[in-house]
Formats: sequence, structure tokens, C-alpha cells
Amino acid sequence: MGKYVFGVDVGGTTVKLGLFDVEGNLLDKWEIPTRKDNGGENILPDVAASIKAKMAEKNVFKDDVIGVGLGAPGPVDGEGMVYGAVNLGWGTFSIRDTLMELLDIPVKAGNDANVAALGEMWKGGGQGCKNLVAVTLGTGVGGGIIVNGSILAGALGAGGEIGHLHIEDNETERCNCGNTGCLEEYTSATGVVRLAKRMLHSCDTPSMLRKIPEEKISAKKVFDAVKDGDELAIKIAEQFGEYLGKGLGVIATIINPEMIVIGGGVSKAGKILFEYISPYFYKTVFKGCGNVKFALATLGNDAGIYGSAKLVLE
Amino acid sequence: MGKYVFGVDVGGTTVKLGLFDVEGNLLDKWEIPTRKDNGGENILPDVAASIKAKMAEKNVFKDDVIGVGLGAPGPVDGEGMVYGAVNLGWGTFSIRDTLMELLDIPVKAGNDANVAALGEMWKGGGQGCKNLVAVTLGTGVGGGIIVNGSILAGALGAGGEIGHLHIEDNETERCNCGNTGCLEEYTSATGVVRLAKRMLHSCDTPSMLRKIPEEKISAKKVFDAVKDGDELAIKIAEQFGEYLGKGLGVIATIINPEMIVIGGGVSKAGKILFEYISPYFYKTVFKGCGNVKFALATLGNDAGIYGSAKLVLE
Repeated sequence: MGKYVFGVDVGGTTVKLGLFDVEGNLLDKWEIPTRKDNGGENILPDVAASIKAKMAEKNVFKDDVIGVGLGAPGPVDGEGMVYGAVNLGWGTFSIRDTLMELLDIPVKAGNDANVAALGEMWKGGGQGCKNLVAVTLGTGVGGGIIVNGSILAGALGAGGEIGHLHIEDNETERCNCGNTGCLEEYTSATGVVRLAKRMLHSCDTPSMLRKIPEEKISAKKVFDAVKDGDELAIKIAEQFGEYLGKGLGVIATIINPEMIVIGGGVSKAGKILFEYISPYFYKTVFKGCGNVKFALATLGNDAGIYGSAKLVLE
Repeated sequence: MGKYVFGVDVGGTTVKLGLFDVEGNLLDKWEIPTRKDNGGENILPDVAASIKAKMAEKNVFKDDVIGVGLGAPGPVDGEGMVYGAVNLGWGTFSIRDTLMELLDIPVKAGNDANVAALGEMWKGGGQGCKNLVAVTLGTGVGGGIIVNGSILAGALGAGGEIGHLHIEDNETERCNCGNTGCLEEYTSATGVVRLAKRMLHSCDTPSMLRKIPEEKISAKKVFDAVKDGDELAIKIAEQFGEYLGKGLGVIATIINPEMIVIGGGVSKAGKILFEYISPYFYKTVFKGCGNVKFALATLGNDAGIYGSAKLVLE
């Protein structure tokens, strides 16, 4: 009989769970709702109950389970301590110790974006790498950095906060984090829309984007227009590429990764993104750190459960 | 009888060597010349001979030596492979394997600036930390990053290249690395002089710096004038602080260190530097990564031998 690991990805609405063998084959995956009431006190007991039920269903015994990995949407340090997770109602406590007590199985925990980066390294777009930067261009910009095969968690679990890299001195609108000029303000899905609206108002260049009601403009529509050769949309893509290329160039100068993996909704535009990112990346990056492969993320929403499972196998 | 480690710091002119006990007490230190002829082929044999001679002198037997650590001025990865060191004439080869063969003692190797950061963490300004950024403001700007107690070497040993962080889009003068707008261009000793000359030419503000022949202006003279309340020198210090504060804010957002240690010639200005760095650091850094202590480096030129020794004890 083989050995198993569980990967758990706690989100604001649902908790995703996966059962894996030690080679990383996903044997089963399912979801449970995230109960956020009472400071999210039910979340880990619900996770434990769901794992126990799955073990009973699959005839998996405790001794067959190497461990449970868990990713959570907040800063989590290398010891599994979470320093608050606003979206779950969580304060500061040890995820690892709490869940280990409930299950009597070894537990490891990490930040969800960091864990997703580990997943992409293990079974996704970054396979074969030990030093990797993963960027998720979604509603916000998330990031995870893998150094020598392990998550860069930082002193208080806030390592790899790529979305809040300061990139623009002349910004006046505030980012959600309270600062101004963060990478997220220009390269998230909402950031691309911000760039688009500013561009539409600042010039008279004709564009198919002008035919869309302004509140319906999306990152997808911008990049669709880019693919159709729309002059204005291409200008927007160039701004996007300048910000992201510079930001990734700065990160690569510090980290010296082998690979940068780009995921999230905006990345559905595909490899065309790299055309706009590359010139600014290579202009910015220290030459000794410039030997970097770019790839698209491939695991989508499953990156979190893969990475959480991998946490246990490190 | 106790156990020992050797720390070796290979520079362009001399090789510094230290004999330590395992608690990190420096028992002896000495230097030998760096023979760079013939592609630097004599350097490691000279190091090995010098260590053997010291062992004979001190009656230290091979079994008493836990290992030899070595820092070199070039990119060195986590396996002790150097990817060229121009100042020594070295190409790409395994420092670890070469020196291990000569000594029949375990060897570890790292980049000199990274190793110096490890030294400051172990016995210098960063004691008690496991996540640390060290910046050396000398002729150039060197840097080393420690993540969870270990050097961030990166894929090709070029991690932590803080001096070549892109920080200014509007620069036209090239950095030694070939890029423009690197942190080193403004915050090294020569960078401070660059800022000073530009400031002197761009305004008529009276200043004691105008009484010095321009070719004699140094970072020390600028910061001495700052301490005397010189208005123009204070403007230069503010520019310096803006560049370094922003750069360190960006690095801290990615790394989430507990401490930033500043060393090198420019740091002899002392804690006054922090007054100019802090406002821009806190404006730039992601709030979750802002809980950082600043300290001055304390080991000076010995940081390299301390850090090399610590490499072996990790």
C-alpha cells in the first residue's frame, strides 16, 4: 500500500482539498464551504473533519498519511504561524499546531500565493526549477518566491509580496495596501483597466475599446484588442509591459531565479504578454541574473492544493 | 581538544584567512598575497598550503577541522561553483571540489558579499536574526541576503545583487554593469560624489563643499558637511537617502527581513545615514514587511572570514 499526502487551499469562499500520492498524482479533489463566522473558528475543524471523512471513504489509515499541507490567505512564516488573515477573520496563531492537534498527523502551512508558487514548481509551469518567481495577475497581484526549492516566507511570513513592489513614484491613487505606486495598481486585472481608462481619456486615438461602455472594459477586452492590432490597446499593453517587465527585472536582480511563471486571469492573454514584458525586463535586470525562462502557469486554481501537498514532502 | 574551522576571504590583492573555534572565536588571522597570474591558478593551492602550514604551527590535526569556508569575488552558487571571477582571472569551476581535493577537508564556498552578510548575522551587526539584508556601501555597492539562516545564492550565484537594483529611469550615465540607473550609481562612495558634483553644478546654494577642489570631494567630506549643517550637503544626503531608502524598501517588500545591516566606507558617517534613509524606506515598503531594524555593520574587513567560517557550520 502506498503513502498519501493531503493538500488544502483555504480561500475566502471555499476550501479546496486534494488527496495525492507521493509522486504528486492527484487522486481526488473536492471542496467545502469556508465558514468565516466567529473569527473563522470552524475552518480548521471543518478541514480536519473533511480529511477524516475522506480517509474513511478511501480506507486510508493514519499511518499511510505522510502529512497535510495547508495554504492560507495571509502572512504565514516557515513554522506555520499565521499573522492574521483578514478574509477569514483569523488573528495570529499556529495553523500547524492547531491542525496537527485535530488530526494527529504532521502538518505544514504557508501563505496561499507562496504555496501556489511551490505547486507550479512541482507539477506546473516551473517544473525542473529550484529557484523560481511566480506571479499571479488576478483581481490583485499575488506572488511567491522559491529559493533553492523552498518557499521564501520571510521573517513574518510576508516574503514575496510582489504585488506591492513600489514601481511608480508619480502615482496619486492609493493601492489597497495604503501605499501608492504598487505593481498591483497597473498589472492586475483591475490595474489593466485603470491603465486603459487613463489612456482613453488622455488621447484621441481611435480604438475599438471606445465602442465598449467604460464600465465594461476588462483586461481580457484590452488584450483581445491588442491581438486585433488595435493601436490604442497596444499602447496600453506597452505600459503594462513596462511596469511588469521592470518589476520582474528588479525581483530577478535580487533573487536570480531560473524561471518566472505568470498565472492568473490576465495571463489568459497567453504568450503575447511576454512580448510586452521582455524588452523592459532585459533593460532592467542585472546581466548576471538575466538568464531567465518565462512560462505560463499551468495548474490554475489547483496550484494551491499541489503546493500545499508539496510542502509536506519537502 | 576542541574543533576548528577556517574562514577564507579571497580578494583581488590579498587573501585573508582566519582560524576559528566552533563558537566563532577568532583565534588567529593572517593574510597572503593573491597571485592572479595564469588565470589565478595558484590561488587555491596557495590557500591550501597556508592552511596546512597554520595547522602544523598550531598542532591542529585534520580530524580537528570541521571544514574550510571560502568567499570569492564572483557569482558562486549553493554547491560551491563559481561562474567566473574577473578580478582573479577565474573562469567557471567548482571551488569546493578543487580546494577539497587539495586539503582532504570539507569545503564550502560562496560569493564574498553574501558570505560577509552571513558573517554580520553570526557575529556582527545582525546577531540574532535569521532573515537579513546586508548592504556594503564601498567603491561599489555590494549586498548579501540571508533567508532563514542561509545565503540566498540564486540559480547562478548572482542572488542579492543589490548594487545593481534598477532605481532611476532617467539616468544616462552607465553603471559598470552596463545598465543605467543602478542603486550603486548613487549610493556607493563614488555615487555620493556623483550626486555631489551634479548638485554643485545645478544650483548656486553656498556650501563649504565649494571650497574643496572638485576632484577632492569624497563621500566622507559630504557627510562631514552634513554634520556641520551645510545646506547643500544636506540636499545631497536627502537624494542619497531617497535612492537607498527606496531601494531597501523594494528589497524588504520581496524578502521580509528582520534587519538591514549597512556597512562599507560610506557607513562610517554613522547612524545619521538612517535619518535620511528612513522616510523613503517607510514610504516605499509594503506595510507587512515594514517591521525592520536598521543597524551598522560591525565586523569591517573581517566579515568575510567570519561568514566563510559560518558557511561550514550551517
